Amino acid sequence: MGTEIQVTTGPIQGSEKHYVDGKLCGPVAMRRIPLEPTSGEPPVVVYDASGPYTDPSAAIDIAKGLNKLRGPWIQARGDVESYDGRQVKPEDNGKDASVPECPAVNRRPLRAKPGKTVSQLAYAKAGIVTPEMEYVAIRENEGRMAALGKARDGEDFGASMPDLVTPEFVRDEIARGRAVLPANINHPESEPMIIGRNFLTKINANIGNSAVTSSVAEEVDKMVWSTRWGADTVMDLSTGSDIHNIREWIIRNSPVPIGTVPIYQALEKCAGVAENLTWELFRDTLIEQAEQGVDYWTIHAGVRLAHIPLTANRTTGIVSRGGSIMAKWCLTYHKESFLYEHFAEICDICAAYDVGLSLGDGFRPGSIADANDAAQFAELDTLGELQKISFAKNVQTFIEGPGHVPMHKIKENMDRQLKVCGEAPFYTLGPLVTDIAPGYDHITSGIGAAMIGWYGCAMLCYVTPKEHLGLPDRDDVKTGVVTYKLAAHAADLAKGHPGAQIRDDAMSRARFEFRWKDQFHLALDPDTAMQYHDETLPSEGAKTAHFCSMCGPKFCAMKISQEVQDVANAAAAAEQGMAEKAAEFMEKGGLIYQKTEAAE
Amino acid sequence: MGTEIQVTTGPIQGSEKHYVDGKLCGPVAMRRIPLEPTSGEPPVVVYDASGPYTDPSAAIDIAKGLNKLRGPWIQARGDVESYDGRQVKPEDNGKDASVPECPAVNRRPLRAKPGKTVSQLAYAKAGIVTPEMEYVAIRENEGRMAALGKARDGEDFGASMPDLVTPEFVRDEIARGRAVLPANINHPESEPMIIGRNFLTKINANIGNSAVTSSVAEEVDKMVWSTRWGADTVMDLSTGSDIHNIREWIIRNSPVPIGTVPIYQALEKCAGVAENLTWELFRDTLIEQAEQGVDYWTIHAGVRLAHIPLTANRTTGIVSRGGSIMAKWCLTYHKESFLYEHFAEICDICAAYDVGLSLGDGFRPGSIADANDAAQFAELDTLGELQKISFAKNVQTFIEGPGHVPMHKIKENMDRQLKVCGEAPFYTLGPLVTDIAPGYDHITSGIGAAMIGWYGCAMLCYVTPKEHLGLPDRDDVKTGVVTYKLAAHAADLAKGHPGAQIRDDAMSRARFEFRWKDQFHLALDPDTAMQYHDETLPSEGAKTAHFCSMCGPKFCAMKISQEVQDVANAAAAAEQGMAEKAAEFMEKGGLIYQKTEAAE
Repeated sequence: MGTEIQVTTGPIQGSEKHYVDGKLCGPVAMRRIPLEPTSGEPPVVVYDASGPYTDPSAAIDIAKGLNKLRGPWIQARGDVESYDGRQVKPEDNGKDASVPECPAVNRRPLRAKPGKTVSQLAYAKAGIVTPEMEYVAIRENEGRMAALGKARDGEDFGASMPDLVTPEFVRDEIARGRAVLPANINHPESEPMIIGRNFLTKINANIGNSAVTSSVAEEVDKMVWSTRWGADTVMDLSTGSDIHNIREWIIRNSPVPIGTVPIYQALEKCAGVAENLTWELFRDTLIEQAEQGVDYWTIHAGVRLAHIPLTANRTTGIVSRGGSIMAKWCLTYHKESFLYEHFAEICDICAAYDVGLSLGDGFRPGSIADANDAAQFAELDTLGELQKISFAKNVQTFIEGPGHVPMHKIKENMDRQLKVCGEAPFYTLGPLVTDIAPGYDHITSGIGAAMIGWYGCAMLCYVTPKEHLGLPDRDDVKTGVVTYKLAAHAADLAKGHPGAQIRDDAMSRARFEFRWKDQFHLALDPDTAMQYHDETLPSEGAKTAHFCSMCGPKFCAMKISQEVQDVANAAAAAEQGMAEKAAEFMEKGGLIYQKTEAAE
Repeated sequence: MGTEIQVTTGPIQGSEKHYVDGKLCGPVAMRRIPLEPTSGEPPVVVYDASGPYTDPSAAIDIAKGLNKLRGPWIQARGDVESYDGRQVKPEDNGKDASVPECPAVNRRPLRAKPGKTVSQLAYAKAGIVTPEMEYVAIRENEGRMAALGKARDGEDFGASMPDLVTPEFVRDEIARGRAVLPANINHPESEPMIIGRNFLTKINANIGNSAVTSSVAEEVDKMVWSTRWGADTVMDLSTGSDIHNIREWIIRNSPVPIGTVPIYQALEKCAGVAENLTWELFRDTLIEQAEQGVDYWTIHAGVRLAHIPLTANRTTGIVSRGGSIMAKWCLTYHKESFLYEHFAEICDICAAYDVGLSLGDGFRPGSIADANDAAQFAELDTLGELQKISFAKNVQTFIEGPGHVPMHKIKENMDRQLKVCGEAPFYTLGPLVTDIAPGYDHITSGIGAAMIGWYGCAMLCYVTPKEHLGLPDRDDVKTGVVTYKLAAHAADLAKGHPGAQIRDDAMSRARFEFRWKDQFHLALDPDTAMQYHDETLPSEGAKTAHFCSMCGPKFCAMKISQEVQDVANAAAAAEQGMAEKAAEFMEKGGLIYQKTEAAE
């Protein structure tokens, strides 16, 4: 089976893999975009979530899984022990299971030695800088050296982004609970990354099969494909059969942290009957997933019995799957949620494997009509209480947010979250700023995502064009990821993230100088950019032409503007009158763009 | 030729044409979306820019052009005269002309009688309510009756949107210069619409052939196609040969106002040599276009000689084509722009035909690096001066804006524009919030467009996925229009536009009740919504199923939530304890959604 799974490998068009060495962590993966020699500019270094798949020198074998980058770091800390893992049970994969076990499975997982806490948060509080933290610091710094000394721009709404990220800064942000570095000790293949509003804005892509469609090959491919285009984490939301084995294939091959919603699998084990869920079943599912290496869990522990009636008059009720499952359970037994009641135990499991907690917003609004209502904010207050517990137990925690929210109500979400959740990172789904555009909800949500990212949201969960309509295919995954990359980048620009504008500026200079290939290569999606260009002007010559199809050869604003700029520059340089220069301009035939001609 | 041109006709899927009678203006075109009988809800009435093409009872003949709706209104005012129009000159179409003349051409155009001003602004200042104003008032009211009495929501940043739009309100907004009703007396085929921040946010679609590609058939089709999906105005930005004849075909068949950038055609007449432009040639081009019926002109009269050096150190110089042409002319002769010098004469021509002025932002930033710089704001100040002149001359005027602007600098654009341009409507291109996503610039710009629309921008000029790369094809036009419709609607929601949320709420109820067909029909793009749904669940039965492919049949949040809501509602109604209701719920088998079952 393993060899039948095909994933996309090789560099992104126009980019090359680039490594920067750390003292503790060794080479840190980045991507470098060389520019045409005529530009006289150095390569642009960009953040790279794609892992070894874009490194031509890496040997990729899906059946073997990725290299265990973090394995030695974890062992060196001396606080873990391996043990005989939980036996796979028939219900882990369901009765219609057909996916074989991933050969790279590890039957002797790690856990914290008795009395130890192995989370990055525990290390950070103890003042320890881990190799993971150093990796993150180096990774976050791309572009910042080049920006040093330049004026800072942007409105950061109280964020604290340093000019350069140091390992100590990473440690301190984690220690304060303001950032999360998801790093299950049983997912040593992952390249460390960080989620927090004082770092680059991150994005998450959801994949996963459902009862209706899709297979393991598709899901592993989607995971690799989504990280290729920039997904910083991936959530496996599978709900059909084979959940356990599909997840194993994904984790063993994932260079990014993997998140799940454990209640989905727990419910599968109950044949979809929420009333049959129990704490014991749920707890067993957590152990199962912790041993596999899931890096963070969405747990809807904030759905409390007393708050359910607040959703009764909503337009769209409870739209979170996890939230609705728990609400049904609570109503059925008229009991407080077992997730809430056993929250401390959940935290203990998280701390033993360094699984991050993503406190789910089970009452997130599913429509503009329900945005920012009493149910939503009651739950947010509960999440704030839970965050204090998990933080005290050294569990890295972030908070999930909506959903469907009109633009004027977005900022209130961010402000309240910061206030009641101890500045723990916020992780939102969009939000979608209108309900009326199914088929385009990557865009309705991209608008809200860019805005809440600007306001301080640390990670944006992507939405694909298929949202509300069907399951995303490969193209939808790419569209969703690229849309969210541009939203996250727009947020970084507006926050005044140091170095964020370097890539925009390089792109703009390439535009002004008609370096078409540089424009493609600097684009978030070079393939689509080149394809669109070539649809109108396919010849190789058009890629060096000083015009494009929008204006044609004789009418180009950029071309005329270069002439204008040359004249104006010359005039300014000589401090001569513009009239004189104008005369000179005419003498030369009125067509001066020496700079670019000389450069060719 | 005429009969060879194919355009898309027939209703939008699930919608029907709907007319509301006015006293002065007769039937006002709208679109009505009937919902499934199970909903118990009335049809949702939505704004409709598509003209007669979506009315199955309308006879469409491109060679004859549309019915002259406004013809009798114009004649009845008694202030126009017909005359022998300007003869078409060979340079109007260029030396490679191949497009035949549109048979619907009128060789006896109208102009104001001596001493008369025929603009809607002149009428408004005189206290006259025209049929055009009444048409607009009725058109803008869709949905507002249903919203009457409901609480207003939103942050309007000082806009003044009444609960109901009256013809007198339309008149007063025009009279104050806060709104523009583009209505050239030689384009009687157009259905009146209005641009102003106290009305629904509008969008513009650009079409037009270039020296590189495309033909008249494509452009007429794109015009019809773009209005089908919601373009409120269309700009014909043709730059190759056949400009005159292509424009005639477009105007005779356009139900929406048509805008142009006359300097493009003037430059064609000079074989692309900006230095050969003269006021006389430009003036003649204005007459040519006014007689054809162009409803508004982008004129870059704010590009002043003294301000050109402010662009010298920009990253991307002058990216506006019109701006760069004028800058080149000014520099060549070291003279003030003839557009600025002859601005009063331009206004006189506008007033004689009721051509609106869209004061072009020739110095709009073409990159994040150049946003909100001295050149841009110096020009904006000039546009403010010019607006005072044109307003005094009773020319309906709006102001163009950027461009490329990071999110944190968008609001300053809106605030300055309102301040220096006498609250004249703002009309922006995007803005794009990052430079690094060519191929996705409908999205980078849609983010900025939604935000500036919220802040008060009256009309959003669309950007297609091909921006910076090539000419948009039919699919790109639709993608651009739908993206901008959702951005404009998001802006209306956030502003608290009365009635805007009615469609969102209807969609959300349809979602919650699994009325799939209603969801498709209420979508901005029903065809794409249904197609995406059917890709995963193509059977007809899936359109009435109480689940979708995302969760599958047994796992649906909406389904569970309906059960939760039923229980919670019942509990609240009976004021009984939740425990009792929970017991009852279990007795019934734990599966209660009687409401929807009963409705089937």
